[in-house]
Order: sequence, then C-alpha cells, then structure tokens
Amino acid sequence: MPAKLKVAVLGATGYSGLELTRILVRHPRVEKPVLLRRPESSQPAKTALTPAADSLNGSLNLADIFPVLSGNGGYPLEPLEWAPLKQKGIELLFLATPHQVSRSLVPEAVRHGIRVIDLSGAWRLKQVEHRAIYGFQDEDAVTAQELTERAVYGLPELNGDRIPGASVVANPGCYATTVILALAPLLKAGLVDRDKGIIADSKSGVSGAGKEPTSRTHFVSVADNLSAYGVFTHRHLGEIAEQLGIGTGEITFTPHLLPIPRGILSTIYVHLGQPVEAVEIERCYREFYQGKKFVRVFPTPKLPEIQFSLNTNYCDLGFCLGPDGRRLVIVSCEDNLIKGAAGQAVQNMNLMYGWGEEEGLL
Amino acid sequence: MPAKLKVAVLGATGYSGLELTRILVRHPRVEKPVLLRRPESSQPAKTALTPAADSLNGSLNLADIFPVLSGNGGYPLEPLEWAPLKQKGIELLFLATPHQVSRSLVPEAVRHGIRVIDLSGAWRLKQVEHRAIYGFQDEDAVTAQELTERAVYGLPELNGDRIPGASVVANPGCYATTVILALAPLLKAGLVDRDKGIIADSKSGVSGAGKEPTSRTHFVSVADNLSAYGVFTHRHLGEIAEQLGIGTGEITFTPHLLPIPRGILSTIYVHLGQPVEAVEIERCYREFYQGKKFVRVFPTPKLPEIQFSLNTNYCDLGFCLGPDGRRLVIVSCEDNLIKGAAGQAVQNMNLMYGWGEEEGLL
Amino acid sequence: MPAKLKVAVLGATGYSGLELTRILVRHPRVEKPVLLRRPESSQPAKTALTPAADSLNGSLNLADIFPVLSGNGGYPLEPLEWAPLKQKGIELLFLATPHQVSRSLVPEAVRHGIRVIDLSGAWRLKQVEHRAIYGFQDEDAVTAQELTERAVYGLPELNGDRIPGASVVANPGCYATTVILALAPLLKAGLVDRDKGIIADSKSGVSGAGKEPTSRTHFVSVADNLSAYGVFTHRHLGEIAEQLGIGTGEITFTPHLLPIPRGILSTIYVHLGQPVEAVEIERCYREFYQGKKFVRVFPTPKLPEIQFSLNTNYCDLGFCLGPDGRRLVIVSCEDNLIKGAAGQAVQNMNLMYGWGEEEGLL
Amino acid sequence: MPAKLKVAVLGATGYSGLELTRILVRHPRVEKPVLLRRPESSQPAKTALTPAADSLNGSLNLADIFPVLSGNGGYPLEPLEWAPLKQKGIELLFLATPHQVSRSLVPEAVRHGIRVIDLSGAWRLKQVEHRAIYGFQDEDAVTAQELTERAVYGLPELNGDRIPGASVVANPGCYATTVILALAPLLKAGLVDRDKGIIADSKSGVSGAGKEPTSRTHFVSVADNLSAYGVFTHRHLGEIAEQLGIGTGEITFTPHLLPIPRGILSTIYVHLGQPVEAVEIERCYREFYQGKKFVRVFPTPKLPEIQFSLNTNYCDLGFCLGPDGRRLVIVSCEDNLIKGAAGQAVQNMNLMYGWGEEEGLL
Repeated sequence: MPAKLKVAVLGATGYSGLELTRILVRHPRVEKPVLLRRPESSQPAKTALTPAADSLNGSLNLADIFPVLSGNGGYPLEPLEWAPLKQKGIELLFLATPHQVSRSLVPEAVRHGIRVIDLSGAWRLKQVEHRAIYGFQDEDAVTAQELTERAVYGLPELNGDRIPGASVVANPGCYATTVILALAPLLKAGLVDRDKGIIADSKSGVSGAGKEPTSRTHFVSVADNLSAYGVFTHRHLGEIAEQLGIGTGEITFTPHLLPIPRGILSTIYVHLGQPVEAVEIERCYREFYQGKKFVRVFPTPKLPEIQFSLNTNYCDLGFCLGPDGRRLVIVSCEDNLIKGAAGQAVQNMNLMYGWGEEEGLL
Repeated sequence: MPAKLKVAVLGATGYSGLELTRILVRHPRVEKPVLLRRPESSQPAKTALTPAADSLNGSLNLADIFPVLSGNGGYPLEPLEWAPLKQKGIELLFLATPHQVSRSLVPEAVRHGIRVIDLSGAWRLKQVEHRAIYGFQDEDAVTAQELTERAVYGLPELNGDRIPGASVVANPGCYATTVILALAPLLKAGLVDRDKGIIADSKSGVSGAGKEPTSRTHFVSVADNLSAYGVFTHRHLGEIAEQLGIGTGEITFTPHLLPIPRGILSTIYVHLGQPVEAVEIERCYREFYQGKKFVRVFPTPKLPEIQFSLNTNYCDLGFCLGPDGRRLVIVSCEDNLIKGAAGQAVQNMNLMYGWGEEEGLL
Repeated sequence: MPAKLKVAVLGATGYSGLELTRILVRHPRVEKPVLLRRPESSQPAKTALTPAADSLNGSLNLADIFPVLSGNGGYPLEPLEWAPLKQKGIELLFLATPHQVSRSLVPEAVRHGIRVIDLSGAWRLKQVEHRAIYGFQDEDAVTAQELTERAVYGLPELNGDRIPGASVVANPGCYATTVILALAPLLKAGLVDRDKGIIADSKSGVSGAGKEPTSRTHFVSVADNLSAYGVFTHRHLGEIAEQLGIGTGEITFTPHLLPIPRGILSTIYVHLGQPVEAVEIERCYREFYQGKKFVRVFPTPKLPEIQFSLNTNYCDLGFCLGPDGRRLVIVSCEDNLIKGAAGQAVQNMNLMYGWGEEEGLL
Repeated sequence: MPAKLKVAVLGATGYSGLELTRILVRHPRVEKPVLLRRPESSQPAKTALTPAADSLNGSLNLADIFPVLSGNGGYPLEPLEWAPLKQKGIELLFLATPHQVSRSLVPEAVRHGIRVIDLSGAWRLKQVEHRAIYGFQDEDAVTAQELTERAVYGLPELNGDRIPGASVVANPGCYATTVILALAPLLKAGLVDRDKGIIADSKSGVSGAGKEPTSRTHFVSVADNLSAYGVFTHRHLGEIAEQLGIGTGEITFTPHLLPIPRGILSTIYVHLGQPVEAVEIERCYREFYQGKKFVRVFPTPKLPEIQFSLNTNYCDLGFCLGPDGRRLVIVSCEDNLIKGAAGQAVQNMNLMYGWGEEEGLL
C-alpha cells in the first residue's frame, strides 16, 4: 500500500468546498485533508456584503459550522501559509475560492511546487475576450499570462490526456459541464447546422448562486418561483464556446434559478445539417463516451431528470429527435456540487495521480 | 342594478374548477354558482386509476372536500341534469372536465340554449390533424363538426372581437397562453425569421398535471427535481401553431415539471429577420397589447418571474435582445390556474356579457 | 355613500406591509393608501445587516420593487412627514416597522391626532417584565408609560369591545394569535389542569422571519430542513401569557422554521382537570367563537392544515381528545401574513370604524 | 480477507429498500446483494390502491426503475424462492415489505435457516395489546407466538447485547427511533416526572408515508403545507412505550407531515422530578451514549436540525432546559430512510456478524 496523498483545501466553508471535503474524507488514496482559511491580511475589508463569509472564515473548526461533519473528530481550519504546507508534505491544493483569490494564489502555489485544482473561473479561459467579463487586474503580468497558457481545462471526458501532466487544473463551471458534454459529440461529428444557432436553456438549484445571503437567495424569493437571469451575459458562455470551438454568437445560453438546493438540468436545442435517425444520434454519443465512466447516455426517448444524478458524479444525457429528423432536443443533468464542482475536481485529481478515474466517487 | 347572471360549474373538485369557484364567488355580477357533479351514469367505470376522482365526485359539499371553502355557508354539489338547470335560469355553464366529457356535454348544453366556457381541450382545434392526438370518437358527427367550427378560441387578447357573440368558448391551454401571447406580436409584425425555427422551453408547476395521484405527481418524485416531458408530442403544440398561423414543424415546444404547486414560465427563442433595436421590440409589444389589461410588458432587460404573476390574471412578458440584434429571448409568465385556466375563463365570461374585462379579476 | 377613509402605511416594503397594501387597495371603504417611507434622518446607520432594507427604502415606487403590484398605476413611496399627512386628511396610520421605530413614532402620531394600528411588538405588553426582552429605552418616559396603558391588544375575538374606541391598537404577534385563540376558550371555561403545564409547539413559514437576507433565511439553509429556535426565549411568550392570564412558567412555547414561505401551524397540548367528552370541548369552542367570523372550529377529529387558511384571514381550530378524556391536542392554523399580521390589522380597522368585521377580507 | 457475506433484499423498489440497496452495494464486507421480487402468487390482488407497487414488482431490473442506479451493471430482480436462495449461500434476508408480508415470510425464512432483518412493524411488539392495531391474523399460530418472543427489537444503542445472537431482528420504526433515543437516558436515570405526561411532537418528510401515490402524497397536497395526523393512534406509539417501559397513556405522540422528501425532527417535552442543571442533563446523555457512534449529543443550547443528519446514520440529540430547571425540551433528528430504516438495518447486520458497528455507514 503506497503512502496516501497529502492535500489541502482552501474554501471548505462554501458549498463546493464542503462537498469536496466530504468526498476527500472518504477517498481511499488521500489522507484526511488539511483545511485552510485565508490569512487575515488577504481578506477583503468587512463590508455589508460579506458578514456570513467573514464569520465563517473566523471559525476554527469546520464541524462547528457544519454539524453534519461532527462526530468524526473535527476539522480544524488552519491559516494558509506556504512554508508549513510544504513541511507537511502537501502536494496538491484545492481552491474553492472567489475568482480574484484564485488568481492571486495560484501563481504562489506553483512557485512553491504545489499542484492546484482551482474550482473558480480564474484560469479556465484562453481567449482574452472571454476573460474580459472577469475584469482580472493581472492580465499584463508575465506569470499570469504563462499560467493562463499552461492551465488545463479540467473536463476529463474532453481533455483527459492533458490532465495527468498538469500543474494547474481549471475545474469547469457547473453549467458549462452540462452544456459542453451534451454538445461536444455532435459538433465533433459535424452533425450540427451551426448557422441556425444553438440554444442552451439551463436551470440550476440555488447552491450554484453561492452561500452569500442576498435578497435573491432568500427562501421567500426562491420558493414557489422560477426566474431567468444573465441572458447573453453569463460568465460560463465563454468557456462553453471555447471548449466547443464555436463563437459566443453561435449559442444562446439562458440560466434559470430553480427552487431546489442543488442540481442542474440543461435543455439544449440544435438543428442537424441533414435528417438522421435517432439511432445515429445515440451511436454518436455512445462512441464519444465509450469508456467514460461518468457520462451516462440514456436510450431515446428516455430523458434524465435532476434527481437521477443528485449525490453522484454522473452527467446524464438523453435526447428526443423531432419527426423531421432535423430538430434535436438534448437534456443534460448533473449535481452542480459534484460533477459540476467537487466531484469533477476529485476526478481530475484521480487522473493527475494515475489512479482509477472513479476512485472515491462511486 | 341589473339581476346577476346565473352560472353553473361542472368539475369544481379539480384544481382549475376550484380556482374558478373561488373567483366566481367574489364576482360582483354573478350569483353564487351552482356546482354540479357528473351523474353516475356518465362516469367512467371505477378503475385503479380513478379512486380520488371517484370519491370526490361522490361528495355532497365542496367545503367538505376543500376546507378552504368552509366558513361561508357551504357549496353543495348537485347532479348535472338539464331541466333543473334551465328552470333555475342558468345561462352559462363552465366545464372543468376531461376532454371526452366536454366533447359529449357541450352539444347537449347548446341544444338546451346554455352557453358554455369549456376549460378542456375538446373544442380548441380547427385543423383535424391537430385534433388527432385527442382521439375524439365523434369526428363524423355533424353536431361535433358544426360546433368545432363555431367554437371560439377564448384568448381575449387575440380573439376579443369574436368572444362576445360566442355560444361556445374553448378556453386556451395553460402553456399555450404563455407561448401565443409572447409570439403573436412578433409574428404579426413580420419580425421573425421562421426558417431558423422557434423554441418554446416551458416550465410548469404540478397543478398543471392535474389532481390524479400518480407516481409522477408524488411529492418525493417532484421535490428536488426537474424533468422534461412530452417533447415534440405535447397536446398544446397544435393550438399554439394554429393560433399563431405557423406549422408545428416551425416551433419546438418542451414542457418541464417544476417543483412548485403553480405557475408557468416559458423561455422563448426566436431569430429576427434583420437586426433591430430593443426599443423596436418593446414598441411592437406595447402597441399590440395597447389597452389589454391582463398583459404586462416589462421594460427590457427586466424579466418577469413566476412569483410576480401568482394569484393574478396577468400574463407577464419581458425580453432580452442579443448583442447581434437578431437573437431574441422572451420570458412569459402566468399563474397556470388563473390566466392559464380559471381567470381567463372569467375574462371570457366578462366579454361574453359585455362587462369590463377585469370585473372580479383584480 | 360616505367618503372613504384615508389611511397611510409605513413599511410597505416588508412582507406584512406588502400584504397589508394588497388588502387595503381592494378594501371598499378605504381610499388607495398613501405609502410612506422613513425620512432619511430617522433611518439607522447603514450597517452590514441592512443593505436590503436600505435600498428598498430609497426606492420611489413600490411597483418597481414588487412587480406583482405593477399594472395598476404604481404606488409611490413618500417620506413620512406629519404636516402633509394631516393636510391630506389621513386619519389612520399603519406601522409595519421594527419595534424601536414604532416605539418612537406612535407618540408622535397620537400627538398629531392620528390613530395607529401598529404591527410591531412595541405596544403589546402591559407587564414590564414581559417587555424586558425588547430592551426599550423609553420606559421612563411619561408618554410611553401612558400609551402602554392605553394601547389595546388588537385580537378582535378577545378584545372586540375595546378596539372601537382605541387610538392605538397593538396588532398581535403571528405565533401568539394561533396560541391564544386555541387556549382562551379552554382556560376561560376552567377546563385546563394548569399544574401539568401547557405546551405550544409552533411551526412557521419563513416570511415570519422577515425580509432581511441572513444565512438563516438563505434558501439552501431552509429547504429540506426543519429547525427549532428561541426555546423558552421567544418574544411572543410574554403576550401569550398576558392575554391568557397565566404565567410564562405555565406554558412552554417552541417555534420552528418550516421550509414554506408562509403559514403557521401550532400543536398545543393541555391536560384537562377532569375527564370530558369530545362534544364538550367542541361546544366550549363553538360558544366562545359564536358570531366570530374569522375563527373556524373543525368538528373533531378533523384537523386544520396550513393550506386551508393560506391567503385567508381565518384562524382554524381543531382538536383530538385522548382515550383517557384528559389529554387534549389542539391544532391551530393561520396565514401568518394575514390573520397573523395584515389581515388582522384590517379587521381591527373595520372594528375601529364601525364597519362589518369582514369588509375587504373575504 | 474472509469471504463476503451473501445477502438478499426483498422490497428494493420502495424508498427504504432502495436506500438499503445503495448502502449494501458499497458495504466492504457484503457481496452485491441479490434483489428479490415477490412471487406472483403471494401478491395481493390488483386493486385500485396498488397500481404503482404492482408495476414495480413486475420489472426485471432495478436500474430501469431507478436510473440513479444505472451505470453500474444493473440490478436484476429475481422472484423469491427459498431453494435457490439457499443454493446461492444467502445467509441474511432483508425485508422491506408490508407488515403482513413480513408476518408470513419470516417464519419461512427461519425454517430455511436464513436470518432476517425485517424493516416492517411485524415483529417489533411483545405486548399483544400493542399489536392489536396491526390486526395480524396469525396471533394464534405457535410459530408466530414463538417468533414474536424471539425477535429482537433492533435498536443497537439499547439492545446491542442481544442483536448479535438474533435470528430475527425487528428494525425499529422511524419515528420511534428518534423518540426512544431521546427519552431512554432520562427515564433510566429516573429524572422524569412521569405523572405530568411526556409529549413527542414529531415531524417527518414524505418518504415516511411510503411510495403509494395517494391524494395525501400528491405534490400539491404537501407543498406549502403542514398537517398533523394519527394523533393518539399512530402505530409507533406501542413500540415507543414498550421500549421505554412506560404506558401508552404516559406519552402523547403527534406525527406531522413536512413538505420535504426525507428527515424527521421530534420535539419532546418532559417535566423533571426536581430542578437540575443543564450540565447534569448533558452528562446523563453523554454517559448513556458513551461509545455509541451513531448518536451525537449536542452541547446545550445548540439544537440539531434535520439537514445535519440527512444522508447519515446519525441520530442527533440536543436540548434546552427551562429557567425553572424542571421543564426540558429535547430535539431529536435523523434521516428517516437511514437511521430510521436502512442504515439502522445495516448497523444491525454489522452487530449480527461481529463487524464494526460503523462498517459501510460512514
């Protein structure tokens, strides 16, 4: 039995970070993770918008914040400092932090020889026009430019060959994962009539909006409701386009906020270049995802539902073909905190260390 | 003060029928409605699928079934018989019944000189190919053919001129109302590039699926979930196409089941024939709905949400125009039991009797 | 037709205030209410805890904040100033404001000859030890002492004789309404064995926790959850004890937070002094609430549910008697925003002006 | 590494049975379980009440019914026949079946030398008056009498010494688990004033009501609602009283139906014989549950919430002591499908085979 890998997590008090901690604790090849909190100096000034996050960061034990974690010895939060991390033999750092924090910490981690899986959007985008929406201040820095080039977009089903050698893995966005996995096989096969436009109508549970209490995440605002937001402007549009090799003008992406805690369902519409049989579509998907354990292709016309993938690392795909053989509706589901965040991060770790892709994830 | 109108309701034990009863009870120009139950002979044989409906029909007082109605004198259910209805001076009958029941009862009502507002899909469709999905057995009957011609599709914002004189009003489907009202202005103005296809991605609360307990409407199946169904095959597709004057192949309609009791949000995607400004779209909507009290057009980019229209008779419309000026996303919301059923039925009644469109509905 | 009453509402941006505005807008004897916002000077300093309330107060039209109110001409918010209020002929002011704000504004209103219905807890308590939990700063002021004496606890079913002449009505707490109405008849009839203690186990929807976004009202914290809070310490305990004429040590009150937007169900446990028949209990309730339109007594063993009273001004009561004839379980339900707040306030107004108790409330 | 245990599950299509299957599939000491369906002959006649269960039993693969289980090779359902079970070396049978079915199958299993963990209420009760509510037809049968005596009530924290040797373990009811674990330490320590009565006010998610679609489990009936039911008559009352050694007249138990899929919170009220300090209560609990891995005692006044125990096998306990030191409110939470059913069944299996109590459950 080889020694277990030593990893650390920064951001375990957020929804994705907590889910990540839960998975890592049970992972057979990883030691109980070191949980980090941001050092005081790097924290934003206390403002009206951050009372919750502030008070969480100040806590000393994750089990105090999340009683679901108690009963197991406790999870102390230690301030992030590089020297002690190195001394402890930490090889891999997970960042479940805001974009700007990831942007500043990743270069430091790399400098200290620690590999990083970053769950934020900081390092996902190669094209500068796609990054504009994030407003990064370090675009001119050589290190940032270089790391932007080196970072691998951590979608294992597409980039599985480049993840093992990566020092920085940019874990994909939750919405993006469902949309890219639904469309990549069809686009690669040249089946899509791109001139007619692609539609991705996505619906997400509230954990995707983060833990900050706002009037938008108040229970009374969300319950008995559905709302669209970020039409034509959502940040995930760039990574969807980039990974699919299309322009942002070729796909219309509309996110919606569902009255459920977690889970995403994307309904995706494409026109095919010429009429096909349903069996050809199914074959296209099955061949593309041959041997990929975490994509489940449903036999048409059976469609995935959010419940099917909750608490799993699966992305489920199903489709219906129109009577004309040219209009195709694809439904893609995942648990946004697992395949859309923490589970996919662990899947990436498994690839980075040469383990079975599904270790700790079934 | 003129005498109040005497009306009857068959089907008050269903979700739409109950909502209708609630509205009628408060309507200033209508007497307390006579509530009817189907005579034993016309009821379907008791089967495994209908225990709930059976037991409800057998009850004698609606307040026993719906305690929300108690405290107000009670609502006895009387068996439907035509002679007593005529003797009581009933002029208008609301049917909140299954399609087949409406199909057989409407000819009888018309023969007895009673006007009908039918909330089912029985009389909505003029084109025989659109009706095929209902499998009506009386297609060859002269009366059925004649009534199919005479029945007016009761969407007041489109057919307001023909409703006053109608003896049979076919109240629109809930989904159809949101989709037709969102698209009619754009299509009439010739703004839509129909070759690129129209998408209507609709999401509905569970009351739209009816009161029958099934594994699909079980709380555990719906909560924490979202699912698509009826892709390319939903019954409302025909009435949408017919009212908009397009083919069913020009629009792709995908309904979804939301984990909420009531409310619909439809996200609708069209390509415009040529680039326009957002202000032109807004003007198009405002001119079309000038003077229509129950359509609210939101200033772009503000979008309606389901909560805004709950417990009202409004259909809310908002939109976002893509940066290319050609991709348009429209969001359309309503309360499926009010503007999508009972409220619209009362709106139709108001038009049929020359009253203010909003009587009893604000 | 007499002239309509002119009223004003301060706090229409909160949940209770919005519901109150909705009811007043339809009330046949009241002019469209003047909606007030607090003058800048009286507002608390902007702190981390009040971003939402601040931004709401700064708005100029309620319909901008609550699209559900649009489509009807708009509801401008005017700064509260006494002289203009008097000039406009405002006779009655509703306060849906924090306790401290009500505590300072009510003396001013009274000085200007304006009657007040206050939805906060500021003036509900006569006994100083019950008020301690609020920490009012003005306990020594003569005016405050005098007004505390004069204010009438606005539970119409108990204090209906004193409300008509009141200049200040202290509208009851939402939990308190369900508990007091369930227990008052039994205690008055001397049926309860008070030595064995009374239990009130209450469950409320989230709107009862107010509109402030906090980690506790975040959708993800509430959904799929239930939690108890404020055990032995909730503010409503004092008014329950005071109105029932018992000590706070004789009743144990436990509130819980339900994953629903609105509604309260209280399950109440008492021991009876001697064995009785269920029919005696039912008679006790029916006699006590004879002629009271907004309390519905259910025939045992039928129990009310939250849904039955939602969107109504009813408080529903039902009970089950144990096989020993001595243990009694009472279930009491209401819509916390209506009978528990805005509806009861309007019921109080109706009594203050000699109108039918149910005007504008059915 | 010893050979893995071979087990079978009958009833994997129900909520508890599915959860049990999920746990067993990952259990390190158990082979992939054999999933059984009832042989046709033993099934009840098809009636209006059983369409769902019937159609599920007819299926051949659990993954077809629960897509959440697909992607892992499938779970065929085999008809229950004893000879093949013996041939396969099945040593332990889990029954997640209706009471009557368990009542008839357990004697057969015992006769074939197969140990049983029964999740139904069939074998939980020793006292005949407590069993009356079930209406068992076999009370006179010698085997039934004998098995009733031999069956061990499978609450490991109370009966851990008798479970290892049991051939039939009667897995506790979900509500009963929360109430018994909350009260047993206090009663054993003689702290409770039993003359004043004990109250258990319990609230459960809908999966506790089973999978049968009924008007009561319809989404629209449950959402935005709370209801009490089975007051003084719920079946779990008998096992609570029996395990605690008190009379059913000494405890009042009121279950409620929560609008959530799973989870139970019980709020429990007792009077203490004499005033105590909170620290004594906490010590009483901690000593009683010393070394028990699946009961977590919270430091007062911190109270458990349903979310904390979801998807775990923990029963969480917390309490608040009144200012008089005599009134005690205890809050007890669990996941009704895990500690309240499937997880506890696996915990019992672990004890029966001498493994660590927590194997496969963390």
